[in-house]
Amino acid sequence: MRFGVLGTGMVGRAIAGKLVAIGHEARMGSREAGNEKALAWVAEAGEGASEGSFADAAGFGEVVVNATAGAHSLEALEAAGAKNLRGKVLIDIGNAMADTQPTTLTVANTDSLGEQIQRAFPEARVVKTLNTMNAGLMVAPDSLGETTNAFLCGDDAGAKAQVTELLETFGWLSGDIIDLGDITAARGMEMYLMLWLKLMGATGTAQFNIRIVKD
Amino acid sequence: MRFGVLGTGMVGRAIAGKLVAIGHEARMGSREAGNEKALAWVAEAGEGASEGSFADAAGFGEVVVNATAGAHSLEALEAAGAKNLRGKVLIDIGNAMADTQPTTLTVANTDSLGEQIQRAFPEARVVKTLNTMNAGLMVAPDSLGETTNAFLCGDDAGAKAQVTELLETFGWLSGDIIDLGDITAARGMEMYLMLWLKLMGATGTAQFNIRIVKD
Repeated sequence: MRFGVLGTGMVGRAIAGKLVAIGHEARMGSREAGNEKALAWVAEAGEGASEGSFADAAGFGEVVVNATAGAHSLEALEAAGAKNLRGKVLIDIGNAMADTQPTTLTVANTDSLGEQIQRAFPEARVVKTLNTMNAGLMVAPDSLGETTNAFLCGDDAGAKAQVTELLETFGWLSGDIIDLGDITAARGMEMYLMLWLKLMGATGTAQFNIRIVKD
Repeated sequence: MRFGVLGTGMVGRAIAGKLVAIGHEARMGSREAGNEKALAWVAEAGEGASEGSFADAAGFGEVVVNATAGAHSLEALEAAGAKNLRGKVLIDIGNAMADTQPTTLTVANTDSLGEQIQRAFPEARVVKTLNTMNAGLMVAPDSLGETTNAFLCGDDAGAKAQVTELLETFGWLSGDIIDLGDITAARGMEMYLMLWLKLMGATGTAQFNIRIVKD
């Protein structure tokens, strides 16, 4: 399958790398074609990997992944172009961190990046997922000693089913993938970042995730 | 030891009940002495249990627990009175939910209830804890099949050490109690509620908690 992965940071490289490794084609998108980090990734990832502008990548993908920094995601998706997103599953992994110390979110509580993206691109089928953990874990969930949970939400049941299958090919066990409901659940998934950052500080590592324990 | 527990809801009853059960004296505080729910709790809890106004309870306690609804906690603590909180450990369990559908928080992202309380009562030694789970679990952490985590934060190291010891008497294992830092960590602890609510919906129970799994 063909994927467009927007973003050249740790998340974009992890996701695009995994997609190529399991046999898909992935085009990494950035502000301008020929981005150094994108070119380095293409050279390293080999067959199935390519790069281009945000619009190139989104147009190439049957599924598009937003792996850009959340504070700039709407701008990146505008550059990708509504027509390149129309009807497609759009996987949003963004965390909308403001450039503040201590960290705050650019959107929270009464709205979320996931909702903003769905409103801005009503013909895209937005699924929020994987933003609650470190990039490495997203594509290697078995790298911790125990199983942990991935969450997803969105308004389109078919899109969520497709993303669930994709997560399973990343190594997530179906029973560990929790559907939190419609896209408004992105608020909780994104606001959790504020706890995650403190947990990272307290545990001394970003290589951790949460597991839901219930009766 | 003597505790003042502000609030007659599920959290107040759970905490005050546990305190009495393990040999402490607890006075439940409400807007006015003689509150029906408080009287019912006193009758049920027996020796060591008493009730009164917010000020009665806070004045009685060597340690004070805020178990009121977060949206009204500042008002309740005003009624309790700064002089009754002065120099004392003030355990804040509040979640500041606004009366909206879907749920939003009255404070988030750039501030938190825990910080508001610490600012309003600078001579109290505020420790935020236990607000990330259902009331029953706060005082019976062994009621799930596996161990899970409790968090705490605050500006006063001595107060946090005292609360950690108290949590251990509730059944929390010391290794499962995670100190997230100063009182600004209350932002993350409170914003997690938005994820918690969706997890409750998805798992179909409030009897769950999270466990941090790390390398």
